[in-house]
Amino acid sequence: MSTLIKNGRIITATDDYVADILIENEKISAIGKKLPEKVDSIIDAKGMLIFPGGIDPHVHLEMPFMGTFSSDTYETGTRAALYGGTTTVIDFILQKQGNSLRAAFDEWSGRATGNAVGDYSFHMAVTDFNDNTKGEIKEMVEEGITSFKTFMAYKGALMIDDRQMIGLMEEVKQQGGMVTVHATNGDVIDYLVQKHRSEGKLSPLYHYLSQPEVTEAEASERFVDMTNYTECPGYIVHLTCEGALNAVRNATRRNQKVFVETCIQYLVLDASLYEKDFDGAKWVMSPPLREKKDQATLWAGINQGLVQIVGTDHCPFKWEQKLMGKDDFSKIPNGHPAIEHRMELLFSEGVAKGKISLNKYVEVTSSNAAKIFGMFPKKGTIAVDSDADIVIFDPNTKHTISVDTHHMNTDYSAYEGWEVTGKVKTVLLRGKVAIDNNECLIDKGYGQFVKRKKVSQNI
Amino acid sequence: MSTLIKNGRIITATDDYVADILIENEKISAIGKKLPEKVDSIIDAKGMLIFPGGIDPHVHLEMPFMGTFSSDTYETGTRAALYGGTTTVIDFILQKQGNSLRAAFDEWSGRATGNAVGDYSFHMAVTDFNDNTKGEIKEMVEEGITSFKTFMAYKGALMIDDRQMIGLMEEVKQQGGMVTVHATNGDVIDYLVQKHRSEGKLSPLYHYLSQPEVTEAEASERFVDMTNYTECPGYIVHLTCEGALNAVRNATRRNQKVFVETCIQYLVLDASLYEKDFDGAKWVMSPPLREKKDQATLWAGINQGLVQIVGTDHCPFKWEQKLMGKDDFSKIPNGHPAIEHRMELLFSEGVAKGKISLNKYVEVTSSNAAKIFGMFPKKGTIAVDSDADIVIFDPNTKHTISVDTHHMNTDYSAYEGWEVTGKVKTVLLRGKVAIDNNECLIDKGYGQFVKRKKVSQNI
Amino acid sequence: MSTLIKNGRIITATDDYVADILIENEKISAIGKKLPEKVDSIIDAKGMLIFPGGIDPHVHLEMPFMGTFSSDTYETGTRAALYGGTTTVIDFILQKQGNSLRAAFDEWSGRATGNAVGDYSFHMAVTDFNDNTKGEIKEMVEEGITSFKTFMAYKGALMIDDRQMIGLMEEVKQQGGMVTVHATNGDVIDYLVQKHRSEGKLSPLYHYLSQPEVTEAEASERFVDMTNYTECPGYIVHLTCEGALNAVRNATRRNQKVFVETCIQYLVLDASLYEKDFDGAKWVMSPPLREKKDQATLWAGINQGLVQIVGTDHCPFKWEQKLMGKDDFSKIPNGHPAIEHRMELLFSEGVAKGKISLNKYVEVTSSNAAKIFGMFPKKGTIAVDSDADIVIFDPNTKHTISVDTHHMNTDYSAYEGWEVTGKVKTVLLRGKVAIDNNECLIDKGYGQFVKRKKVSQNI
Amino acid sequence: MSTLIKNGRIITATDDYVADILIENEKISAIGKKLPEKVDSIIDAKGMLIFPGGIDPHVHLEMPFMGTFSSDTYETGTRAALYGGTTTVIDFILQKQGNSLRAAFDEWSGRATGNAVGDYSFHMAVTDFNDNTKGEIKEMVEEGITSFKTFMAYKGALMIDDRQMIGLMEEVKQQGGMVTVHATNGDVIDYLVQKHRSEGKLSPLYHYLSQPEVTEAEASERFVDMTNYTECPGYIVHLTCEGALNAVRNATRRNQKVFVETCIQYLVLDASLYEKDFDGAKWVMSPPLREKKDQATLWAGINQGLVQIVGTDHCPFKWEQKLMGKDDFSKIPNGHPAIEHRMELLFSEGVAKGKISLNKYVEVTSSNAAKIFGMFPKKGTIAVDSDADIVIFDPNTKHTISVDTHHMNTDYSAYEGWEVTGKVKTVLLRGKVAIDNNECLIDKGYGQFVKRKKVSQNI
Ligand SMILES: [Zn+2]
Ligand SMILES: [Zn+2]
Ligand SMILES: [Zn+2]
Ligand SMILES: [Zn+2]
Ligand SMILES: [Zn+2]
Ligand SMILES: [Zn+2]
Ligand SMILES: [Zn+2]
Ligand SMILES: [Zn+2]
Repeated sequence: MSTLIKNGRIITATDDYVADILIENEKISAIGKKLPEKVDSIIDAKGMLIFPGGIDPHVHLEMPFMGTFSSDTYETGTRAALYGGTTTVIDFILQKQGNSLRAAFDEWSGRATGNAVGDYSFHMAVTDFNDNTKGEIKEMVEEGITSFKTFMAYKGALMIDDRQMIGLMEEVKQQGGMVTVHATNGDVIDYLVQKHRSEGKLSPLYHYLSQPEVTEAEASERFVDMTNYTECPGYIVHLTCEGALNAVRNATRRNQKVFVETCIQYLVLDASLYEKDFDGAKWVMSPPLREKKDQATLWAGINQGLVQIVGTDHCPFKWEQKLMGKDDFSKIPNGHPAIEHRMELLFSEGVAKGKISLNKYVEVTSSNAAKIFGMFPKKGTIAVDSDADIVIFDPNTKHTISVDTHHMNTDYSAYEGWEVTGKVKTVLLRGKVAIDNNECLIDKGYGQFVKRKKVSQNI
Repeated sequence: MSTLIKNGRIITATDDYVADILIENEKISAIGKKLPEKVDSIIDAKGMLIFPGGIDPHVHLEMPFMGTFSSDTYETGTRAALYGGTTTVIDFILQKQGNSLRAAFDEWSGRATGNAVGDYSFHMAVTDFNDNTKGEIKEMVEEGITSFKTFMAYKGALMIDDRQMIGLMEEVKQQGGMVTVHATNGDVIDYLVQKHRSEGKLSPLYHYLSQPEVTEAEASERFVDMTNYTECPGYIVHLTCEGALNAVRNATRRNQKVFVETCIQYLVLDASLYEKDFDGAKWVMSPPLREKKDQATLWAGINQGLVQIVGTDHCPFKWEQKLMGKDDFSKIPNGHPAIEHRMELLFSEGVAKGKISLNKYVEVTSSNAAKIFGMFPKKGTIAVDSDADIVIFDPNTKHTISVDTHHMNTDYSAYEGWEVTGKVKTVLLRGKVAIDNNECLIDKGYGQFVKRKKVSQNI
Repeated sequence: MSTLIKNGRIITATDDYVADILIENEKISAIGKKLPEKVDSIIDAKGMLIFPGGIDPHVHLEMPFMGTFSSDTYETGTRAALYGGTTTVIDFILQKQGNSLRAAFDEWSGRATGNAVGDYSFHMAVTDFNDNTKGEIKEMVEEGITSFKTFMAYKGALMIDDRQMIGLMEEVKQQGGMVTVHATNGDVIDYLVQKHRSEGKLSPLYHYLSQPEVTEAEASERFVDMTNYTECPGYIVHLTCEGALNAVRNATRRNQKVFVETCIQYLVLDASLYEKDFDGAKWVMSPPLREKKDQATLWAGINQGLVQIVGTDHCPFKWEQKLMGKDDFSKIPNGHPAIEHRMELLFSEGVAKGKISLNKYVEVTSSNAAKIFGMFPKKGTIAVDSDADIVIFDPNTKHTISVDTHHMNTDYSAYEGWEVTGKVKTVLLRGKVAIDNNECLIDKGYGQFVKRKKVSQNI
Repeated sequence: MSTLIKNGRIITATDDYVADILIENEKISAIGKKLPEKVDSIIDAKGMLIFPGGIDPHVHLEMPFMGTFSSDTYETGTRAALYGGTTTVIDFILQKQGNSLRAAFDEWSGRATGNAVGDYSFHMAVTDFNDNTKGEIKEMVEEGITSFKTFMAYKGALMIDDRQMIGLMEEVKQQGGMVTVHATNGDVIDYLVQKHRSEGKLSPLYHYLSQPEVTEAEASERFVDMTNYTECPGYIVHLTCEGALNAVRNATRRNQKVFVETCIQYLVLDASLYEKDFDGAKWVMSPPLREKKDQATLWAGINQGLVQIVGTDHCPFKWEQKLMGKDDFSKIPNGHPAIEHRMELLFSEGVAKGKISLNKYVEVTSSNAAKIFGMFPKKGTIAVDSDADIVIFDPNTKHTISVDTHHMNTDYSAYEGWEVTGKVKTVLLRGKVAIDNNECLIDKGYGQFVKRKKVSQNI
């Protein structure tokens, strides 16, 4: 099976040129001017941009939560991702406190295997680090799970204390992995949540007011300090605010490098949405949306090279599930549906508005995630021998985001009515046309687990 | 004329894969697995690394100075560069105070045209900004000279004051150009030079002690402040020290981005060399070499994304010329020969020692210079349609740097006896083999002037 | 001649207690409970606060300027100061470029001697540092002029370049003096002034827009860098803004200490006053008034111990003189009348509103100036053996500032209509009642020149 | 009973003059030149310095610990303090987790009442903040205990988590108190202690290596963040290092003020003492001694106004008690004997060596503690109406510190053999001569509990 994509404008994290792409056996085998047309199929990409398939390193599919599950399965979630140009996602396995990493791995694998439409990998969230867990780190690295997520919040459920954190960092460093972190101060947040509840302040607005900027700035400083001490590669997920990015900026003064991910919502939405009474529940996520000044910081951070990745923290719930918190913001399931919109929103708000270059766009939506998480050059670029994960993108078509047209398993859109410039036209996953003109052409089970390699702080 | 380079491991700022490269009409026309071998010539690159031709954006060839000239002509200088894997250089035109930019442009073009072996472009050093000069900025941009160099030191010769600087920035911003700067406080340096001379402190060591870190940190802060105010794209040449990089780091807090170049010598040499009596004259350059702590800062800055380019500030003099300052360090011509060694030294000290990745190596030796200075994608990458400027590099061969083997027109080496890991084997310039096995196969005049495009702060 | 002040609440930079003060021979001889009443006169201060006489270390009396003079003579200026509780002022001698310090000293002494009502001293502004000037530094220190003012702005008139600055610092340090600075970037300001003028932007608002925060932040950074290098004691006069104070804050990280003065107007007025058409000329001063955020920074700086002094930069002009700039802001004489209001405004806005403590009030209006400028303990405190310079202050009386009631020689007030809480009731200068119930009881010529001692960075 | 101290050179935090001091009824009633000599006793202080009695706000007397007690009782501890010129100490009551503040208050009062020789007060260490404790904060403030100590380390014993911390801060702010903190990251320290023990690294050196600078820097940042959020007055006890002081310096940029105490040992001793095998146990304290660079930071911090107090953290143990940790550093009781030497060491190393001024000496040994902790002007100065707590100090006598001559209840000295310049000659406590020529003239029970007032962030 061979395919030729003709005359597209190919964009990688570095390059920008017009050429044909030849695909054979799931991989790119040649790129050139006027390549021979003796192939099984030809796609005309004249006038189109060609991006490497997007990688979203922060999604939560079918995640068990409060007796229910996040509403996208591996099938619906990875399919929606494909519609939006994201060909690979990294989901989070959550160790259950008291249980082993292996048990969690098995549980998550069980749900994903045979169901994913797009490719996927896993981070391992370590919620209980002890002597047993320590022994499993090496094993997980061998399974291709080389990034270990930690929570500095959600005490009693997911949170580890600094003692566990330091211990984990030393072991992960030893095994060639990386520690990633949800960096907010769980103790302070718990205090504020209870305080607001006891004062009868129960609307979604108080979710926002219970997680002020300082809770994220503080935890980010602390994480940065601990990675500096242990010299373990570190990565902050969903960084949202100036205070937190300043922790990373300050660390540059001691010659330290920590990787930073932000998410699309923190670049384009802000906290004024919480003033809409219970409708604000749509954007109840942790950390919450921030201020305009924080958006400016994040865009700058991307161009300064201090923010490497734009993900989504996709964790969708149906409105009925959100209603669990109707009378108490602390009972609203955290998360919003975004997996489908990341690539188009970032193009529209970032590239089309001149905030970032085309190369930077590819860097933060695909290449950096592939490199930082050990999937490069299989994923994350358009180059000979890489997987033919390819997005053919029409930069000029405008369309409007709506629950009526999206493919995520939620009954509302967090971006209802947004007009975006640019549209995903065709998506190939390992050489196969997965999406074409708003239709999905592959079935569940096509998506494969991606084993990942050890990491490096130098990318 | 067509050439096929087979089986090399191709490294760009993003990619890393093994493939063949087809070259036609000076440009790369295809990259792929097992490309057809119907070509005029075939080069076997198995086991070799393939880099984009190096770009050195900071060289001074045949520069008039103190009644003499820097000792490399466009011929000897660009040829030596090619031997070392650098296919394009950017030289500095120096406006003469009282004269026009045009006059300087003509003078410099006159010396370069027909003489260069490798490709070249020019920065324009504005040493006298006034109403006439202001009118010429647009003209120069149209000539393809889009970067304007300024000196905050060398009062009475090259230095402009802050008033001129602000004026220049406003005009350059208007015309789509960039202001680059030699950022050291000329007044303070002049004071210290005269003080040391009056105290009979005349050896090269006092060159170093007359330009303490604070003189560079201060001027860098000032330049960063002025670019922030004017919003003109800014670039600091030959940044050497922690204090100066901290100025850039501090500016990230106000969401500012300033480009930074360091030079190979500041990464690998240090100020202990000035303790060698007059032999220290070999390293008399401005700014001077710094301390070990500053080297650490610069390596970190590269990986933090805050230092984008490694150049040379190549400005060679023969020993006889250096002897002009035998009895007075202030009369020693400033500069050292390095154009030939940048790529090999950075590979050996950076890549081979694990300090930077292969991709980062290409980024800082080639791609970033091409992008920042408006030559991309013609120069700076290995991609379809780009100039076939290609370095075939043997990563394992070790050799020793010496005046006996180098090709620069100086009678000493600043790196005599250094053993380096990795060697340039073959170099192609616009598809033609320029260097092969220590032989130069092209003649003077082959090198072309590269007209440059407008710049962007987002690369 | 002996006087007893009974039952006042005595406030020093440290203390706060109720006691009687016995004054003999111009000095305080005892402080105690129920001191014997065998004295020439008794003042009842029950319910009153007793402060050390205020010291304003930044005034310009009868200063030659643009062919005219600032409108307060030593007589009117020091008398107005006394009305406001300021018993000692430090005026600035301006060296004329090309002339000696001695000549300037003689000229200024000539104007002051026999005319001052209150006590005074001089700073020496060095506007032309050369080998001759260098020799005079020691002489001036011997005359009791131990602080040397420099201007980083007003090019061609007062400004010295960084070369002179460094040279001056080295000599002043040697002689046990201190360098003080008007820290704004004169080149950038000149550029902006000319730009605005050439664009026909001629109203007072453009005075403000020609001196943006960055011009002060930059120069403050530069000055701090130079004092760090030379280790000369340094002092920044009239610091107005966050950017500039941050330069001092940053320097604390390298264990550096630089003294900072702000002025009362920067704490209580802001730049919105420039929007009043030509009426804004009343507040045309350099640096200009700033923003609310800068006021917050300055109040915090005082409590953080990073701002030691609140002065006035009193430099009054009559409205007729201000009208010189009716059609061109750059011709408006810089300065405003404030010498009389500093103590009352700072009490009202600072102490009465809870922003600073009573002790801090005395520290920044009197004691720190005495210590930093070598007049302590003669001036600056209420203690045995100190000059009996005493302010008896009614903390509760409210009154309104107006040109109709002030004593400065200007025909408008910069604070017209301000209601202040607290009022100077009686002022003693060296034991003699100078002001009592709005009447001045001493004559011109009573004021004495205060010879100052060498300085220390540790106070 | 009246006393006259004649002709001493009186030093307060502000003043410096020669005069007589009259004492009546425990208080100073007058200060003046040649006061009448009709008194019960006269002390000649010619040539002597007169300081306000020292206040040591950080001591642990008879503190229950690991089944034993710190070896100085209220009697021996306050008496040794008096010998060294410290007339008032503030000890720490430790709430027992599960019990009330009141119970702890009663226990501590029981030990102190009738036993103290010198005056004393208490901080309340809150180790278990819950709804009950919350109710007791107001009560304690009414008892005159207005400062609440917290531990971010010693998990399971004294440590509270950030949730409790925020809750406590909100309540303490409400009640007009202040939160003080032992700021080191207990989790990280626990991890490192266990790690070193499991590796058989058991000597005192590993006590030091288990509490690296980052553990203190991190916790200080966190505390500063939390006080910024809650706006509760905050105070960091025993700050030792650059990283931690930088947290406070950074906070100045957001206009925040946090009080800082260091201790005498961190200014004069360094971590090289831990290299002495088990002898290093003498200096096992938390935080441990640091590096030379940290000493420089602390001296600078004092002169920058960012460090307000020098205490001791006096917590003495006999050698037998130290031997509990002979085979395991984690079992060595933490603390060292210093209560007697603070004033003399700081004079000798600070004043006599020119690092700080005499006024600053009084500020950091006495006045600031009195102000910050609500005992001013009763304590902390030499002024009319203040307690006659007075140190008559001979600045020239040299003597040598030794276990043979000290008065603390320990059988070794942590400063054995140190020669100090300056000696406490006579000490008065509330008008009574307590110490004279190395003899203590008052009995246990003379010392009184000092009720303290509410606090302010503006001193
Ligand atoms: Zn999260
Ligand atoms: Zn998440
Ligand atoms: Zn240069
Ligand atoms: Zn150069
Ligand atoms: Zn000024
Ligand atoms: Zn002035
Ligand atoms: Zn402690
Ligand atoms: Zn303690």
